[in-house]
Amino acid sequence: MHRDPFDWIDERQARLRTAGLVRTLRPRAADSDLVDLAGNDYLGLTRHPEVTEAAAEAARRWGAGATGSRLVTGTTELHARLEEELAAFCGFEAALVFSSGYTANLAAVTALSGPVGSGTLLVCDEGNHASLIDGCRLARAEKAVVRHAEPEAFAKALAAHDGRAIAVTDSVFSVDGDAAPLAALAGVCRESGAALLVDDAHGLGVLGDGGRGALHAAGLAGDADVVATVTLSKSLGAQGGAVLGPARVIEHLVSTARTFIFDTGLAPAAAGGALASLALLRREPDRAGRVRDVATELHRRVTEAGLVAVRPDAAVVSVRAPSPEAAVRWAADCRAAGLAVGCFRPPSVPDGVSRLRLTARADLTDSEVAAAADTIVRTAPTAA
Amino acid sequence: MHRDPFDWIDERQARLRTAGLVRTLRPRAADSDLVDLAGNDYLGLTRHPEVTEAAAEAARRWGAGATGSRLVTGTTELHARLEEELAAFCGFEAALVFSSGYTANLAAVTALSGPVGSGTLLVCDEGNHASLIDGCRLARAEKAVVRHAEPEAFAKALAAHDGRAIAVTDSVFSVDGDAAPLAALAGVCRESGAALLVDDAHGLGVLGDGGRGALHAAGLAGDADVVATVTLSKSLGAQGGAVLGPARVIEHLVSTARTFIFDTGLAPAAAGGALASLALLRREPDRAGRVRDVATELHRRVTEAGLVAVRPDAAVVSVRAPSPEAAVRWAADCRAAGLAVGCFRPPSVPDGVSRLRLTARADLTDSEVAAAADTIVRTAPTAA
Ligand SMILES: Cc1ncc(COP(=O)(O)O)c(C=O)c1O
Ligand SMILES: Cc1ncc(COP(=O)(O)O)c(C=O)c1O
Repeated sequence: MHRDPFDWIDERQARLRTAGLVRTLRPRAADSDLVDLAGNDYLGLTRHPEVTEAAAEAARRWGAGATGSRLVTGTTELHARLEEELAAFCGFEAALVFSSGYTANLAAVTALSGPVGSGTLLVCDEGNHASLIDGCRLARAEKAVVRHAEPEAFAKALAAHDGRAIAVTDSVFSVDGDAAPLAALAGVCRESGAALLVDDAHGLGVLGDGGRGALHAAGLAGDADVVATVTLSKSLGAQGGAVLGPARVIEHLVSTARTFIFDTGLAPAAAGGALASLALLRREPDRAGRVRDVATELHRRVTEAGLVAVRPDAAVVSVRAPSPEAAVRWAADCRAAGLAVGCFRPPSVPDGVSRLRLTARADLTDSEVAAAADTIVRTAPTAA
Repeated sequence: MHRDPFDWIDERQARLRTAGLVRTLRPRAADSDLVDLAGNDYLGLTRHPEVTEAAAEAARRWGAGATGSRLVTGTTELHARLEEELAAFCGFEAALVFSSGYTANLAAVTALSGPVGSGTLLVCDEGNHASLIDGCRLARAEKAVVRHAEPEAFAKALAAHDGRAIAVTDSVFSVDGDAAPLAALAGVCRESGAALLVDDAHGLGVLGDGGRGALHAAGLAGDADVVATVTLSKSLGAQGGAVLGPARVIEHLVSTARTFIFDTGLAPAAAGGALASLALLRREPDRAGRVRDVATELHRRVTEAGLVAVRPDAAVVSVRAPSPEAAVRWAADCRAAGLAVGCFRPPSVPDGVSRLRLTARADLTDSEVAAAADTIVRTAPTAA
């Protein structure tokens, strides 16, 4: 037999095409006149000369790659320094660096669930990031998916379970930019003896004193029953991820997390870049406040003009679009006017609602913010 | 209630400690006198000045991070160039770059399995890498795990299944360094209309004409029913991974693979480093032959001295140790004598057999190879 094993892909792509859901890559040039409200470089650090020079220097000094698993040859003093600095900055006892935020989340969820038969329940916000969801799929645990940002829903799921449990949530949800009720969730967890695992990808650098993150802001950083994950690829402008928590949790991850043991260590350039960003953030703590102000101002301007947007709890401003097609056209019109915005539509939005996703940046001037909001309003679909 | 939700971790760590299985990180300095037979920098490129300078230059020119998902702001012309070059070098129609080899494998296995209900069977070699195994766990598909490197076992599993199927295998197995019978597996797949998915992490840069990989060597690169994954973190000395295959498969991954859509793009420094390595490999194709010769020579020397080792099919030489404890001691004695070697023991070896894992490097001189083999033989446990 010589059947074509991929014929189904053509059919599937045709279906996606009909539904307007085919995605294509649009490579960008190194220099662009577009104003970027689409990326996650919230603090404007990814091209900061201190950050890029630190990345370059790390590549020259440590090599272009880590050369192996961090348990073999892939751990350098640079990785160790980054871990110390991340833990100290965010207020946790210890930290462990991964090759991405995605693999950090896979590690945290699976390793904290324990081995098969440990009877762990994972209680997950329905708005959690894909990497947390995949972590839950990989974990040998029971799962309960509960309504978005509702502590009572977490409490109910936890009360119905007899045994170990972990509440799993984003701190700031990546699609709508709204914050999780962390203090209430921590209270609920403590009521039932559950652990709290929080993905602070969009909180680090934006929330908390000087950008120390959502858990620091909630007074939960460093608590014995709290574990955080962060990414180095957004506010810190580099690549990689980390798990932050009690030292014993970090030691457990070193010995058991598959995406730690069986993955090559983070490239030195990314570690060096992230370290330089942390140093900058310590020196210029106002960047965190500035990005929040920019987000608030963007939101104020577009809603005053009649658009529907979620009040931002951090740096992401989500503006509603009437349909997937309208969202795509809107984003294209913004781009034609010199403004890059994110466009989220099914199936990567959980609720079927398409939106423009605007990300504030600390390095935008007031007039750039005003001009960006103008562009968004001017190009808005009439039915929005 | 204020139960300690992580008390079980202490018990588990204590059990691992008793079994001698606690892992600890040993950060290395930037400069070291150790001869490295532990990392996966097979071609000695990770510290090659052209590679580190290209990484540094990419960070300066493109920024320390990609700033977003490759579908939003994370695709640059540098990523596109790397994809063209990888596809051309390895002989495939198209390529897609990921933040790691791990996430590339998760993407390939899950996206090729199709959505729930597609009735796909994944037939997996029992020696497959952890990232392929995790991909299979995430996939909405049936799984059959078959005996190591046995085409008949694949054939039997495929014959028992009615519907779509994919045979999934490493090209070179990471623990023992033995090669999969790719030509026979391709024959078996074609008999039953199944696709063949091969992780060529340890083949790229080592096997095939000028290091074009195991599929190129087997005459299978570019075939319509064959998909490969590679990593940029071993021979290419950087970080990242890629899926190589027919253009329609790559387009399907762009629209559906979760670790592509929901992950930040590979950092420019890693992309730039990998591109420089590919250019070097084109210019100096003998590096691939050299690393194979070094592996053969290491194997010859240690087996002639009476040690038990697997004949290497690529760059990895696996030497048997009598026990986990003896393996750890042996590796430590090598290190004390100036030689870094890998030490694999349960549970990260599937068969419970501990071994030293030696990796050949193209940039070792004959006398360094001889000295390394001497050290291994001299420090060998008497019962080995
Ligand atoms: C909430 C959240 N968690 C985790 C990740 C994954 O982090 P990374 O892209 O660094 O792998 C992302 C975004 O990519 C995210 O938005
Ligand atoms: C066979 C194999 N596949 C995939 C990977 C993962 O690649 P990476 O480390 O680049 O994520 C590795 C090693 O780490 C490997 O040995």
